[in-house]
Amino acid sequence: MAATGDIGLIGLAVMGQNLILNMNDKGFTVVAYNRTTSKVSDFLANEAKGTKVQGAFSIPELISKLKKPRKIILLVKAGSAVDDFIDQLIKGNLEPGDVVIDGGNSHYPDSIRRTKELESKGFLFVGSGVSGGEEGARHGPSLMPGGSVAAWPIIKPIFQATAAQAYNEPCCDWVGETGSGHYVKMVHNGIEYGDMQLIAEAYDILKRGLGLSEDEIADIFLKWNKGVLDSFLIEITANILKFKDDDGEPVVTKILDKAGQKGTGKWTAIAALDAGTAVTLIGEAVFARCLSAIKEERVRASKVMDGPKKEPFRGDKQLFIDDLEQALYASKIISYTQGFMLMRETAKEIGWNLNYAGIASMWRGGCIIKSVFLSDITAAYNKNPQLESLLFDDFFNKAIRNAQPGWRRVIAQAVLWGIPTPAFSTALAFFDGYRSEIVPANLLQAQRDYFGAHTFRVLPGKENSKFKAGEDIHVNWTGRGGNVSASTYNT
Amino acid sequence: MAATGDIGLIGLAVMGQNLILNMNDKGFTVVAYNRTTSKVSDFLANEAKGTKVQGAFSIPELISKLKKPRKIILLVKAGSAVDDFIDQLIKGNLEPGDVVIDGGNSHYPDSIRRTKELESKGFLFVGSGVSGGEEGARHGPSLMPGGSVAAWPIIKPIFQATAAQAYNEPCCDWVGETGSGHYVKMVHNGIEYGDMQLIAEAYDILKRGLGLSEDEIADIFLKWNKGVLDSFLIEITANILKFKDDDGEPVVTKILDKAGQKGTGKWTAIAALDAGTAVTLIGEAVFARCLSAIKEERVRASKVMDGPKKEPFRGDKQLFIDDLEQALYASKIISYTQGFMLMRETAKEIGWNLNYAGIASMWRGGCIIKSVFLSDITAAYNKNPQLESLLFDDFFNKAIRNAQPGWRRVIAQAVLWGIPTPAFSTALAFFDGYRSEIVPANLLQAQRDYFGAHTFRVLPGKENSKFKAGEDIHVNWTGRGGNVSASTYNT
Repeated sequence: MAATGDIGLIGLAVMGQNLILNMNDKGFTVVAYNRTTSKVSDFLANEAKGTKVQGAFSIPELISKLKKPRKIILLVKAGSAVDDFIDQLIKGNLEPGDVVIDGGNSHYPDSIRRTKELESKGFLFVGSGVSGGEEGARHGPSLMPGGSVAAWPIIKPIFQATAAQAYNEPCCDWVGETGSGHYVKMVHNGIEYGDMQLIAEAYDILKRGLGLSEDEIADIFLKWNKGVLDSFLIEITANILKFKDDDGEPVVTKILDKAGQKGTGKWTAIAALDAGTAVTLIGEAVFARCLSAIKEERVRASKVMDGPKKEPFRGDKQLFIDDLEQALYASKIISYTQGFMLMRETAKEIGWNLNYAGIASMWRGGCIIKSVFLSDITAAYNKNPQLESLLFDDFFNKAIRNAQPGWRRVIAQAVLWGIPTPAFSTALAFFDGYRSEIVPANLLQAQRDYFGAHTFRVLPGKENSKFKAGEDIHVNWTGRGGNVSASTYNT
Repeated sequence: MAATGDIGLIGLAVMGQNLILNMNDKGFTVVAYNRTTSKVSDFLANEAKGTKVQGAFSIPELISKLKKPRKIILLVKAGSAVDDFIDQLIKGNLEPGDVVIDGGNSHYPDSIRRTKELESKGFLFVGSGVSGGEEGARHGPSLMPGGSVAAWPIIKPIFQATAAQAYNEPCCDWVGETGSGHYVKMVHNGIEYGDMQLIAEAYDILKRGLGLSEDEIADIFLKWNKGVLDSFLIEITANILKFKDDDGEPVVTKILDKAGQKGTGKWTAIAALDAGTAVTLIGEAVFARCLSAIKEERVRASKVMDGPKKEPFRGDKQLFIDDLEQALYASKIISYTQGFMLMRETAKEIGWNLNYAGIASMWRGGCIIKSVFLSDITAAYNKNPQLESLLFDDFFNKAIRNAQPGWRRVIAQAVLWGIPTPAFSTALAFFDGYRSEIVPANLLQAQRDYFGAHTFRVLPGKENSKFKAGEDIHVNWTGRGGNVSASTYNT
C-alpha cells in the first residue's frame, strides 16, 4: 500500500498533539508516533478521533507510512532523547534526502552539530524554534526553521500553512544555516525577558512614583496599546492589572515578587558575552529576576536602608505618563537593536546568512513578543537587508530622537525618587555610548598599559613619529618600565 | 647528599623567574626547573647568579632536591600543560603528602578537578591566584591559595613571606577548598574591570560634562586619592592624566578608545549568570568594553544620532565634583557587595568555606585593586564573618547613606547631559532594588502565568482560601484556561 503521510511527528505530549491537530486542520496527513505506543492508540481514539491522523507503533512503520522525501518532526525533550531518535530513524531506513526536524527547545550548538552529522550521511536536518506554547501549537505558532538549506522548499508548504498568520503573512520563514533556527528562538526568548522587564519598570514608576492604582495603570496600558507600544504583552498587562480577586483587590498585588526563569534569557546573555556584543538590556533583565529572587534578603535590607525622602510629584502627571510611554518605546528600540546586533555578530562569526526581515516578521504573530513594532523592523530590513543596526534606519532614528527628551526626564526622575530602572537606564547608557565618537576607553587602555604593559593603538588623527598607526604602542609611564602594577602605590 | 630545597618551581618565564628571586630574597632555597632545560642554565648563569637558587634538569632531579613534604609550584600556561606536568611529577616519584601548587591563570573548574584527582592519589593540591604581574611576582604579589586544606600549614610560611605586605600583614591567606583560590582570583579580576569602568565614567563626566582639562581632572583624582577612594587605580589615573607627549598634549587624548580584554571579566559575568547572582556592575563593565570595541560603528552613529543640546553647567562645580566622588564611592561599594555576594552564592552551591575577611585583606597589596577601602571590607568581615552583605555592615551602610544624594544628582545630570554612565546607573538600580521590599516581579509572575501557566506563589500576608502559602497557584486569567499565549492578541 502506498505511503500517504505528508509528515511524521514523534512525541505526543500536549505540544506534539496540538501541532498534529493543527497540521491536520490545514489538510495535511500526519503520522503520529510515541515511544510509549499506548499513547498513540489513546491519541487516535480521543483527541485525533475523526481526523486524517494516522498512527505508527514503531519507527520503521512511521517511516514506511511517509511520502518521500520524508519529513519527520521531533517534539521530545531537548538533549539525548533527540539524538536517540535520530539514531533510530537512521537505523529505521531513513533515506538520503529525507528531512529530520527538531522542534524542541534545543540549545543551538546541538543543532549545529546535528546538521553537520545528518548532512554527512546524506540526510537533511532542520532545527526549528517553535513559539507560542500549547495553544500556539494548536492554533498557529511562530516557527523559526534553520538548518539544511535544501530542506526549506520541502517543508515550506506545511510550515507556512501551520504557522500563525499575521498581517496576511505566515509567521514562518527560513532563518538560516545549521543551528540558526534555535539560535534565533533563544534570542527571541531573551528579548521577551527584556520586554517584560521594561513593562515591569513602567508599572513600578506609575505605582510607586505617581502613586496610581492598578485600575488607573491598566487604563494607561490600554491607551498605550493603541499606539506605538501596541503588543500582546502590553495588552495582557492591562488585563492582568484589571483582574480582581473576590475581595475586589487586584490579584497582581497578591503575587509574590520573586520571578522565575527557565534559562533561555541566561543563555542569551552568555551568548552575548561570548560574542563580545553589548546586549546590556537582556543582561539587566536576567539580573533583575535574580535580584527579585532573593526576596527575604531584600525585605531585611528594606528595614535598614532608606531611599530619598518621598516627595509628591509636582509636574504634570499626563505629560510624565507620555514621557514614560516614550521611555518604554525608546528602551524597546534599543533592546531589539542589541538583539539584532547579537544575531549579526554571531552570523558573522559562524558564517550564517540570516534573514533579518524574515526573523522580525516571524515574530509578529504566534509568540509572546508579537507587536506592531515588529512590522517596522521588518520594513527596515526589507528596505536595507545590510542595515548596520536599527538605529541607522530612518524610522527608528526619528522615533528615538523624538523619544529622547521624555526618556531622559523619566530616568532622571526615577533616580531621584529611588525607583530602580535597570533596563531603562542601561538602554539609555547604551544609546549614549553608541552615538559617542569617543568613549573614555582611552583611559582604560592607558591604565592597562600602565600596570600591565598591554599596549594601545593611536587615535586616528593623532599619529606622530612615536605613535604610529597600526602599531601596538607602549609608553614608559613611570620612567621605570615594564609592569609596575605592584610597586608605585604604597599601602 | 641530603635534599636542601625548600620549594621547587617549574616554568622559567619572567613570572617564574621573578617569583623565584623573590622567594630567594626571603631566605628560601628554590629549585628551578624548565621544560627547555637550557633556560635553567641561562637563569642560573644570569638572573639567579650569586643566589641560593639551585637548578634541576629533570623532574626526578627536581623532586630529589626538595625537602619533604615537597612543595612544587607550576607557573606554566593554563590548560593541558598543567595536567602534563602533574602527570610527570607523579611519575617522577612524588610521594603522598607532597604539595603541587598551580600558580597560573587556570579557570577554577580545572582546579576543582585537579584537587580531587591529586587528593585521590594521596597528594595535596593548591590552586593559587597570583596577582600583581611580573613586578608583583618580583617584589611581592597578592597570593590567593585554595585547594587541599592540609596543604596550607605546609606552604604558609613561604607564601606569606613571599607575598606583598600591606598594613603590616601579608597579602596572602588561605581562601578555601578545591578551586576557590582561582575562583577568587577570577572575581578579583572582574572587580578590577568594574573599578576601571567607574573611573572612566568619572573622567568622562569631568571632561565632557564639566569641560575640564586633563590637568584639572588629574588634580581632582590626586585629591580623591587622599580620601575614601585612596587606591592604586586612582593614583595611576592621576599620573596618566598628567603624562604629556613631547608636544605638551596629554598622551591619554591620543589613545584609541577601544578597550581590550583578556576574558576574566567575561568569566566572572558568566559565573554570575550561572550562579543566578545579580553582579550587574561587572556585567556592564564588560559590555562597556565591547561597545568601545566597535569604534567605527560608533563613529558612523555619532554622525546621525544627536544627544541633548549641550547646556553650560549652571550649578556649583566643586559641589558637583564632591557629588561625583560620592557617586564613585557608592558605586564601588555596590560592586564589591555584588562580588562578595557572588562568592557567597558559589561557596554555598559548591560547599566552600570561604575566608571573606582574608580575601579582602589579600587584595590590599600587590594587586591592581589594592586600596584603603579593602581594609574597611576586611574589618566588616572580621566583625561578622557571616555578614549577609556589605550593605548590612554599619560602616558601609552609613557610607552609602551619606553618598546617596550626590550619587543620584550625578546620574540624573549625566542622563540629561547625554553622557553614558552604565556602571554608575546599574549600581544605583541594584541598590534601589536591593532595598525594595517589593519589586515589580509580581507583574512578571502574573504575565508568565497568563501566557504560560507557569504559576506563582502568594505574597505573605495576602493568603486566602484560593491563594495558599507554599502552593503553586494558577489563575484562569482569561476564563479560557491553559496557555493562552498565542490567541488573545490579534495582529
